[in-house]
Parts: sequence; structure tokens; C-alpha cells
Amino acid sequence: MMEDNTVFIGRKPTMNYVLAVITQFNTGIEMVIIKARGRAISKAVDVVEIVRNKFLKTSTVEDIKIGTEKVEDEDREEGINVSWIEISLLKGK
Amino acid sequence: MMEDNTVFIGRKPTMNYVLAVITQFNTGIEMVIIKARGRAISKAVDVVEIVRNKFLKTSTVEDIKIGTEKVEDEDREEGINVSWIEISLLKGK
Repeated sequence: MMEDNTVFIGRKPTMNYVLAVITQFNTGIEMVIIKARGRAISKAVDVVEIVRNKFLKTSTVEDIKIGTEKVEDEDREEGINVSWIEISLLKGK
Repeated sequence: MMEDNTVFIGRKPTMNYVLAVITQFNTGIEMVIIKARGRAISKAVDVVEIVRNKFLKTSTVEDIKIGTEKVEDEDREEGINVSWIEISLLKGK
């Protein structure tokens, strides 16, 4: 069985994603990866910080990666560059 | 002499901060720390990615830290929590 341990941050309220992360951990998964692109990057950091400080104080940030990907755009044939972040959060004990 | 190697990301256009980072490196500094709070976090990642991919291809992300700090707020005596990010960018060779 593949572990579905990634939470993509989008336009919903921050607490929806906090709940999604907590729910993942409650299924027994040890590591959740929080991913976001563009302006949602700030929200991804908020989600991790709220989980870590308020809901699951044993959890720790294992790794943070950033990068750039090309996204299709109607107006520009070559696409546009969008930054992304991936934060690996460990459940801890 | 203290090295003034930190760039704080605020509300100016992204390219202003890209230029600030490049300027720091051009003074001979090996490591620039890019700091941002709240919604500026996404812009901090953009700045690092633009420097890395377009202007200084030798540079590499050495470390990324995230955290939370209390900020004073008129409406709430206890203050509000704001997320921050600190990205250490190494000039490279």
C-alpha cells in the first residue's frame, strides 16, 4: 500500500490544511510532506508552525526544500516560473 | 567590521531584493541570509530562486529555517503569531 503522506496547500483556509496534516499523522504515518507553490508558500509555513506549536508538539521539521517549476500560461508560450516549497514534518514521540 | 549580510524581504518588488542580494555578494561576502515574515515568505523563496537560476548560478541554498514569533497587535493584548523563514544562500565558485 502506498502511503498518501503529502498535503498540497491551496486556497482553502489555513486550518483546513492543519487538520489534513493532523489527520494524516493519526493514520499512523510518521512523516507528512507539505507542498506549496507561489503565494501558497507562506501558508505552508503557517500550517507547519501551527501543527508544531499547537497540535503536535513532538513534531519536528526534518527537511525543507525549495525550487522552481515551469507552469503553463495562456499568455506566454514559454510558460512562467513558479517557486515551490516542500517541508517534511516528522511526527516524533 | 561586522558583515551586513542579511536581506529583509518586505513590500517592494521582488527584483529590488534580488538586486540587494547580488549587491551583497559583490562586496565579497560568501553567504547572504534572506529573511521574511508572514506573506513575504513566498517572495523570499522567489528572490532566492531568481538569484540562483538567473544571476548567480554557482550559488546554493545552504540552510532553510522556519519559525514563529510574536508580533504586537493593537487589537490583541497577547500579540499575534507570525511565521518567518531564513534562507542561507552561499555564493559558491
